[in-house]
Amino acid sequence: MALAEAVAHEQRHAGWRGGAVVVDHGLQPGSDEVAERAAGWVRDLGLDPVVVERVVVSQNGFGLEAAARDARYAALESVADRVGAEVVLLGHTLDDQAEQVLLGLVRGSGARSLAGMPSVRGLVRRPLLGVTRVECRESLTAEGVSWWDDPMNADESFTRVRARHAVADLERDLGPGVAQALGRSADQLREDADALDALADRAVRSLGPGPWPVADLLAFDRAVRTRVWRRLLTTAGAPVGQVSARHTDACDALLTQWHGQGAVHAPGNLRVRRTPGAEISLD
Amino acid sequence: MALAEAVAHEQRHAGWRGGAVVVDHGLQPGSDEVAERAAGWVRDLGLDPVVVERVVVSQNGFGLEAAARDARYAALESVADRVGAEVVLLGHTLDDQAEQVLLGLVRGSGARSLAGMPSVRGLVRRPLLGVTRVECRESLTAEGVSWWDDPMNADESFTRVRARHAVADLERDLGPGVAQALGRSADQLREDADALDALADRAVRSLGPGPWPVADLLAFDRAVRTRVWRRLLTTAGAPVGQVSARHTDACDALLTQWHGQGAVHAPGNLRVRRTPGAEISLD
Repeated sequence: MALAEAVAHEQRHAGWRGGAVVVDHGLQPGSDEVAERAAGWVRDLGLDPVVVERVVVSQNGFGLEAAARDARYAALESVADRVGAEVVLLGHTLDDQAEQVLLGLVRGSGARSLAGMPSVRGLVRRPLLGVTRVECRESLTAEGVSWWDDPMNADESFTRVRARHAVADLERDLGPGVAQALGRSADQLREDADALDALADRAVRSLGPGPWPVADLLAFDRAVRTRVWRRLLTTAGAPVGQVSARHTDACDALLTQWHGQGAVHAPGNLRVRRTPGAEISLD
Repeated sequence: MALAEAVAHEQRHAGWRGGAVVVDHGLQPGSDEVAERAAGWVRDLGLDPVVVERVVVSQNGFGLEAAARDARYAALESVADRVGAEVVLLGHTLDDQAEQVLLGLVRGSGARSLAGMPSVRGLVRRPLLGVTRVECRESLTAEGVSWWDDPMNADESFTRVRARHAVADLERDLGPGVAQALGRSADQLREDADALDALADRAVRSLGPGPWPVADLLAFDRAVRTRVWRRLLTTAGAPVGQVSARHTDACDALLTQWHGQGAVHAPGNLRVRRTPGAEISLD
């Protein structure tokens, strides 16, 4: 609603047109009424068109939150396509970003997962990433705009809700400004991850098809090599979500801790070997 | 004590000799007695030499914890030098590392401050970085070794103590394994920071003395440029601790958001300007 309010304000001044998509996930009784009520509020603000999309959330093995998100983004994409939207604005706040970073941190899976949500990707823009949830509520109260608090946002069985409490606990333990600092960390780590990913892409192109001389791989910094291994493995057919640091570390040990060890077994039934001629083969 | 116990065990089997330094910070009444008692315990384990170093902690404007740390490391270095130590082992655990990462995170100051403590730097080794505090205590209890709990470790006025609570709160909010995940994050981010620092060093060498063409600077990824700006500023005399993201961002805007803005003022009374000839000057 805060984003809708901001868009309504801007379109009165900036000469562009904003609509809205209200996604009804159908996960709670009466969610269709809530969706219609929210759509009414947004229409009252002056947005047009306002589309209510009812989606079917099918559990996909990664949990209800992930399934709901997938269904929601698919609905947004489909409406954007249908109405020819130039950009899709999402209402994620600084607090959402902080929660995202904290979840990445406790997964321990590297800079990219710590980098949070980008403010620009494809059609997507997140104009509220620098604004706190409290500021959004205050702005709505000041403007006299109604909003709906999803009861699922208080359900402790969801990781996201527990992450919210974690940020609040950090603020209490370590002082105010934690959400802002997490947001700054995300911005910097995203730039780092972008640079290292670009280096790894260039490295893979320069390496060409295997087998690859050990010396050629060792010429890259370890942070680049980790990403190169990941690319070589997934290009050879390893499923993206299954390649972990355990696999890339074992591959790298063929270079840096060579003592005649056997082939590294990687997802997708791959074998990575060091040949007697000091080359790395992958098949 | 856990580290001393491990060293005593290893030297019985590995044919090297381990001593210990007990640092008396002189911050609590009776600390000299505690230090002598600890030295006795360590001698009983079989370490030799065992040296008690009394240090003077002088408040240096960065707080008591930082001053105590500086005095402690100086004492370790001086004893290591005196006895000709080949390595200096420090007893930091996985929990210490997790706290360090969390403190870096809430400062929001980039990959290096999130990268925690290295396991190897100069003479220093940290062999317990993969071991939890609980495991250390359990090992001491099992071996019947005494230890001293510093009451300052429970003093909430110290940032480090609050960070300890923060890690415990995260474990409660987000599940067990948070300390391990923070440790893994630190390892990966340290590799990233090492790679990007090496790139920035190379970039600065290739740029040579200024002024620098805008196009030459823009050839680097933004994550590298941020580090290049930091190096250019500190080389020109900006005090290291005073250069912040605000300064490097303003410098970078001379390249990426050029609209004829004036000189960027940086610490050390520096001015960074874009010349009419599309060069960057620094003086």
